Amino acid sequence: MKIEGRNSVYELLKTDKEIDKILVQKDIKDEASKRLLNAIKSRRIKVQLVDKYVIDKESESKRSQGFIAYVSDYKYFDLSDILGACKDKDGFVVILNEILDPHNLGSIIRVCECAGVDGLIIGKDRSASVSDTVMRISEGALNHVKIARVTNINNAIDELKKEGFWVYAAELGGSEIYKSDLTGKICLVIGGEDSGVKKLTKSKCDGVVTIPMFGKVNSLNASVACGIAVYEIIRQRVMKNAEK
Amino acid sequence: MKIEGRNSVYELLKTDKEIDKILVQKDIKDEASKRLLNAIKSRRIKVQLVDKYVIDKESESKRSQGFIAYVSDYKYFDLSDILGACKDKDGFVVILNEILDPHNLGSIIRVCECAGVDGLIIGKDRSASVSDTVMRISEGALNHVKIARVTNINNAIDELKKEGFWVYAAELGGSEIYKSDLTGKICLVIGGEDSGVKKLTKSKCDGVVTIPMFGKVNSLNASVACGIAVYEIIRQRVMKNAEK
Repeated sequence: MKIEGRNSVYELLKTDKEIDKILVQKDIKDEASKRLLNAIKSRRIKVQLVDKYVIDKESESKRSQGFIAYVSDYKYFDLSDILGACKDKDGFVVILNEILDPHNLGSIIRVCECAGVDGLIIGKDRSASVSDTVMRISEGALNHVKIARVTNINNAIDELKKEGFWVYAAELGGSEIYKSDLTGKICLVIGGEDSGVKKLTKSKCDGVVTIPMFGKVNSLNASVACGIAVYEIIRQRVMKNAEK
Repeated sequence: MKIEGRNSVYELLKTDKEIDKILVQKDIKDEASKRLLNAIKSRRIKVQLVDKYVIDKESESKRSQGFIAYVSDYKYFDLSDILGACKDKDGFVVILNEILDPHNLGSIIRVCECAGVDGLIIGKDRSASVSDTVMRISEGALNHVKIARVTNINNAIDELKKEGFWVYAAELGGSEIYKSDLTGKICLVIGGEDSGVKKLTKSKCDGVVTIPMFGKVNSLNASVACGIAVYEIIRQRVMKNAEK
């Protein structure tokens, strides 16, 4: 949803609505606009300074005054909702550590929906958030996966551990994923397209699991890697249940 | 690579170069242009009739005369090259049955490269072919995977079977992929985004293997589904080798 115009954007800042980003016209000069831009920046919202023609193209009201905010209609869950859903069972939670591409996020949501994952956790900063693109790419899966957006991924890992989760990062250089026991309460951490799982986050994990590679380039798309790792966990659960 | 102008496109048609598609200006009226368009159509090449501004935007020479052909620089392998590479080992071949989206094709090539797949087979009709987009999305993996483009997927399956391959379609409604023995010489058939594996093709397969789904929407992106299925085959091979 787009919120346009100086006053409307000002009012929006006072609410706790999730703002994906705000487009601001590059060459704003008047004091009222500068004050608003400073207010936006102090809230650590993603700002894109763009040319007037971009604003004109994006504006639906044609009365944007150089400000267009994109608000997510999506209502995020709290981490406690996800933990609550895992209370009396072997929960399965996926954490995304700085996935930036909305196409990857949408595709990962589809994976998690198919696999019956109990919740997906993303960070507030440096992460794609739920947007119209993500909605579209997820092909409806978004409505059936609990997504929590947290300020600090590392704190979320601590909370998961307190609840009895084993936390594994999916990364190069760990032990082969097929050789790790991934049954029980499991949290899988998937790294971002560029940076992988961050050092501090990795140090908080109980282990690092690796998809074996046999090629020369050995680069998997983030959502494909997520699909392979998530489904290895599913396989181990299916096999364990079959043994019972 | 773009080939522009009536004469150049005419000459191109006489070669055996792989033509991805030809953009033709919608409102061509002169006889020479109409003759060329008919010649193109008789060759069953993908034609897109577009407005003049699209031609102007795409043209590099600015002398396109309303015709721009896109030629793949990629040199496809023959099916025999792939079969030859599998001669004395447990080969692993992937067939794509009408994957249309170049992004999916690029992403699938990455999967196959990582997994060390011996070859990828695509159909000549109704299939994304190797284009600049596929090159870009594959992130270099394209240079390390043998891709053969065949007139008839079903005949290719017959040839693979003659060489001792077991052919499995990855589709809904089959037996759970984890319960099928997928070691030995294996060919995996992945269905297109819209249509899945075609009926006749499926009837030629030795079996249908299915990724279990636990959600409500249960729709995986084609390249993610391919990644999960390919890596289940890899897992079974890795585990079998570890037993030895």
